[in-house]
Amino acid sequence: MKTYLDCIPCFYQQVLKAARVSGASEEVQRELLNNLSEIIPKFSLNTTPAEMGKKIYTMISKITGKKDPYREIKEESNKIALKMYPEMKVRIKNIDKDKQLFTAVKLAIIGNIIDFGIEDMESIQEKIHIMLNDEFNFQKNIDEKYFDYSTFQQYLSEVDSVLYLADNSGEVVFDRILIEHLVNSYHKNVIYVVKGKPVSNDALVDDAIFCGINQFANIISSGADSPGIVLKYCSPEFIRIFDEAEMIISKGQGNYEALSDKENPIFFLLIAKCPLIARHIGCKIGDFVLENSLRKGMPSVDFIESK
Amino acid sequence: MKTYLDCIPCFYQQVLKAARVSGASEEVQRELLNNLSEIIPKFSLNTTPAEMGKKIYTMISKITGKKDPYREIKEESNKIALKMYPEMKVRIKNIDKDKQLFTAVKLAIIGNIIDFGIEDMESIQEKIHIMLNDEFNFQKNIDEKYFDYSTFQQYLSEVDSVLYLADNSGEVVFDRILIEHLVNSYHKNVIYVVKGKPVSNDALVDDAIFCGINQFANIISSGADSPGIVLKYCSPEFIRIFDEAEMIISKGQGNYEALSDKENPIFFLLIAKCPLIARHIGCKIGDFVLENSLRKGMPSVDFIESK
Repeated sequence: MKTYLDCIPCFYQQVLKAARVSGASEEVQRELLNNLSEIIPKFSLNTTPAEMGKKIYTMISKITGKKDPYREIKEESNKIALKMYPEMKVRIKNIDKDKQLFTAVKLAIIGNIIDFGIEDMESIQEKIHIMLNDEFNFQKNIDEKYFDYSTFQQYLSEVDSVLYLADNSGEVVFDRILIEHLVNSYHKNVIYVVKGKPVSNDALVDDAIFCGINQFANIISSGADSPGIVLKYCSPEFIRIFDEAEMIISKGQGNYEALSDKENPIFFLLIAKCPLIARHIGCKIGDFVLENSLRKGMPSVDFIESK
Repeated sequence: MKTYLDCIPCFYQQVLKAARVSGASEEVQRELLNNLSEIIPKFSLNTTPAEMGKKIYTMISKITGKKDPYREIKEESNKIALKMYPEMKVRIKNIDKDKQLFTAVKLAIIGNIIDFGIEDMESIQEKIHIMLNDEFNFQKNIDEKYFDYSTFQQYLSEVDSVLYLADNSGEVVFDRILIEHLVNSYHKNVIYVVKGKPVSNDALVDDAIFCGINQFANIISSGADSPGIVLKYCSPEFIRIFDEAEMIISKGQGNYEALSDKENPIFFLLIAKCPLIARHIGCKIGDFVLENSLRKGMPSVDFIESK
């Protein structure tokens, strides 16, 4: 996805938010906003917003000297999510076997509500509880147009392994529910991909281990520190794994921004939180998305008929 | 009110919005955002946000060549508001005499929901109808802490004339309801102040006349084109009238930003739409505000006791 002009005000909000999390003084916050003003005129809109994210977090880390300002927030969100884990496991066990995969996918998407760029932990916890207890609340946020569960299910049945791209800390616990299910019930090999260096509240290897992913999947790093996996910043090893993957599950908006134009077999699981991403997908803010890159790559019926 | 760091992302949103209303191409929109990036590092936070508003609208008008891009929108909002006028008049007539002033004040504040920086006309019309029909909806949005009706009423009883600072087009019709009441039932002389040149959807002399204000009040221009009356840009005649005014009614956030630090007898009528203004006032977003500069100038009990 390219960068829209509407992303520019949002970049300023991101700088301010991250600067404050980093404990920057008012003066340093102003300096960071001024620095962004120097970058903006040179930034190409043909790059993805995730690339600007990389620039922003690198700049903040350099000026504030804080390598991982979201460390505490990440630890807290992992702990809170782990407390919800037993309840989620019981929920999966108590439903019909043929509905378990769908519920696991749904939980993985619900976990994507965790995003410190947008809300604080208390309101997130409340929202997650409401969603978990309200099937209707989930159903009203999905539509087959951008929630293609049948292709996901079919594709999954034909592969041996899944490359799973993580998003936020805390959310990792919700990913674990789906991954456990893919491993135990569907006998898939799963590789779980985290960021190479701290960026925002994105999960790192430590977070994945703390949340117990290592019991079910291999954990690797993308090598990059952009919010969303921008391939050109990733390690050659990761790029090879990515290109050879039979099926990729990609979590969150950052990865969608960075990878939506690729032709690899990627299934994007996310909650649409930004109006531009919602417009790009064709859904509303708050909608639950299960989109795949294959469908987008296929010419539409209209296109074929007009040839 | 000074400019907060959080105003900076909002300035970018304002540029984008106004550039689009002006019909600017994607390239010109980008150019305008880049120009703002040049201004931002030099802009002092000790000035009011209304001053940046002036810079923004001047820049857009200069680059797009459009002197009054909001003209059509303003005309439309005047017409829509005028259609609601008869219903509002009936509403005032049918209630007890001692409650009429309060209702007129309430209507003038409800009119402040018109703001093209934030929403489109259809949803505004719907909201106004809901508010008009739902006394509870209005009551739940007010609190004596920031809705000092008794001082307003008392102050009004002691003056002969009122200087009324307009905000948006369309809203003018709601102002007219209050002004008619001040003139006919309270026998006040009212001077209605509009902007000197086009800025956003703010009312000009034409709008005030189209909405019939001239039947009840003298209409004058502030001479300035900032969103919110920044005195240093106003004509000497207006500044004299402002300084000599017995009582000033000031509509909207722009005027609050520009004038909240003054010691003149100003009564601010507005809906809090921005989180920073809400924080400054001590209310929530969406709350109805009737604040006065006199109260703010007085030392609080805590302050006196600690001396």
